[in-house]
Amino acid sequence: MRAIAWHPAARGLADDAAVLEVGGETLVLTHDAMVEGVHFLPGQDAADVAWKLVATNMSDLAAKGAEPVGVLLGYTLGGDDDARFVEGLDAALAHYGASLLGGDTVAGNGARVLGLTAIGRATYRPVPGRDGAWPGEALWITGPVGAAMMGFEALRDGTGGDSLAYRRPVALLGQGQALAPHVSAMMDVSDGLLLDAWRLARASGVSIDIARMAVPIAAPEARRDDALRWGDDYQLLFTAPPEAALPVPATRIGLLAPPGAAPLTLDGIDVGEAGLGYEH
Amino acid sequence: MRAIAWHPAARGLADDAAVLEVGGETLVLTHDAMVEGVHFLPGQDAADVAWKLVATNMSDLAAKGAEPVGVLLGYTLGGDDDARFVEGLDAALAHYGASLLGGDTVAGNGARVLGLTAIGRATYRPVPGRDGAWPGEALWITGPVGAAMMGFEALRDGTGGDSLAYRRPVALLGQGQALAPHVSAMMDVSDGLLLDAWRLARASGVSIDIARMAVPIAAPEARRDDALRWGDDYQLLFTAPPEAALPVPATRIGLLAPPGAAPLTLDGIDVGEAGLGYEH
Repeated sequence: MRAIAWHPAARGLADDAAVLEVGGETLVLTHDAMVEGVHFLPGQDAADVAWKLVATNMSDLAAKGAEPVGVLLGYTLGGDDDARFVEGLDAALAHYGASLLGGDTVAGNGARVLGLTAIGRATYRPVPGRDGAWPGEALWITGPVGAAMMGFEALRDGTGGDSLAYRRPVALLGQGQALAPHVSAMMDVSDGLLLDAWRLARASGVSIDIARMAVPIAAPEARRDDALRWGDDYQLLFTAPPEAALPVPATRIGLLAPPGAAPLTLDGIDVGEAGLGYEH
Repeated sequence: MRAIAWHPAARGLADDAAVLEVGGETLVLTHDAMVEGVHFLPGQDAADVAWKLVATNMSDLAAKGAEPVGVLLGYTLGGDDDARFVEGLDAALAHYGASLLGGDTVAGNGARVLGLTAIGRATYRPVPGRDGAWPGEALWITGPVGAAMMGFEALRDGTGGDSLAYRRPVALLGQGQALAPHVSAMMDVSDGLLLDAWRLARASGVSIDIARMAVPIAAPEARRDDALRWGDDYQLLFTAPPEAALPVPATRIGLLAPPGAAPLTLDGIDVGEAGLGYEH
């Protein structure tokens, strides 16, 4: 779920959440869309789809250290499973303490497209961005990647394996709020660790070297390279001094240097833009 | 563009914009979605589609007497006409003085679905709702209905007639701000005058009788009944005393009474829910 980087006015925004100063408060606003057949499987339980739509937006708030206020929903009516969608939506909103403020339902006309706008309140200022990292700092991650990949494959292949991590991802709002005062840059890993770390490096004007074996994975070792490129895990990726005392568990997975030949290397090797993973 | 009235938590919201108190300011938030083949014609100029997407949301702000702050866009990439879309988006945002704060682009997979969230600042409190109308007041409208219908038909039939009102509707932000202190209830006419007036009557717990011939139309007289049911004109519909001195031109088209057998009548006759018009 890439943002509107193609829009000239959005060049500075990348796919980052928006920060808006309003009457002495700092709001964080984010919009994520999901397309049937692209971001979720046709026929997938609508309750899971609703949950994930909320979670992806909450994860964007988490990366800003924000607490949720509410959401607005854009929903293409799907017929039979609208009630299931509402169940999942209610469950997710209750989980995150967010209100449904409004939205719009439209008649569908093909693959379903769902959009959610989330509004949050910053708990720490300045709000962490992606452009604040410095050479000499370390790259950290809050937990393993690869669980959503394994879950997706279990669901797709009907193996009966655990698909919860793919179906019901959890946004790390508490961790994001705790980390905000300690980080120089932060984002969530939604599109894959390598691609997202590359974006952080580019935004900050640094180069990042990730130690391949240092990355915690929730997948068989043989799938390590896939796990580093898969998205949907919603861990928080951030930069802080290498010896930082952090308020939540996190793993140091890389080091930052001045900008070099490539924004991102893996064990010192440039994987190239094509090697970063895929974008949806 | 009906809102999520089907959602239990949204029952009070109907398809109204959300009002949010933040740090001493009052924000107005609205989300409208548009589906190819439902809200715009396949093959329609993407610049016009972008304009309309912005205008529909701005119109929601207008009905609240709000001034625009910015928007978030959910956009399914369409290939060839993305550049045209950006042109129309820029033109509309410049027209309304709104910023593109962020958003999300997704790969399409069928009919395109576009979503826009608009954020505005209330200029008058309490922010006008739909539920504030009283028996004895009059129903007013800022201008004619039917222009968008005529424009749509010209475009659809390739008659060469003027389609501007359909392609490039104008949200009445200035009028909405000027009217806000004078109205007991206000909304924009997006889905058709009769349907929207019916909604206002229901929300306020009154009955409304519209004088059929009093409604200004921008269509041949033979099309009066269609014009009263067509949407997309984005006039402001509001309630105020029958002899109110108003700061902007407006026409008195109906009277409010205590709740009766039907929320809405036309020259005293109940048109029934099926006679109100269509919903998309």
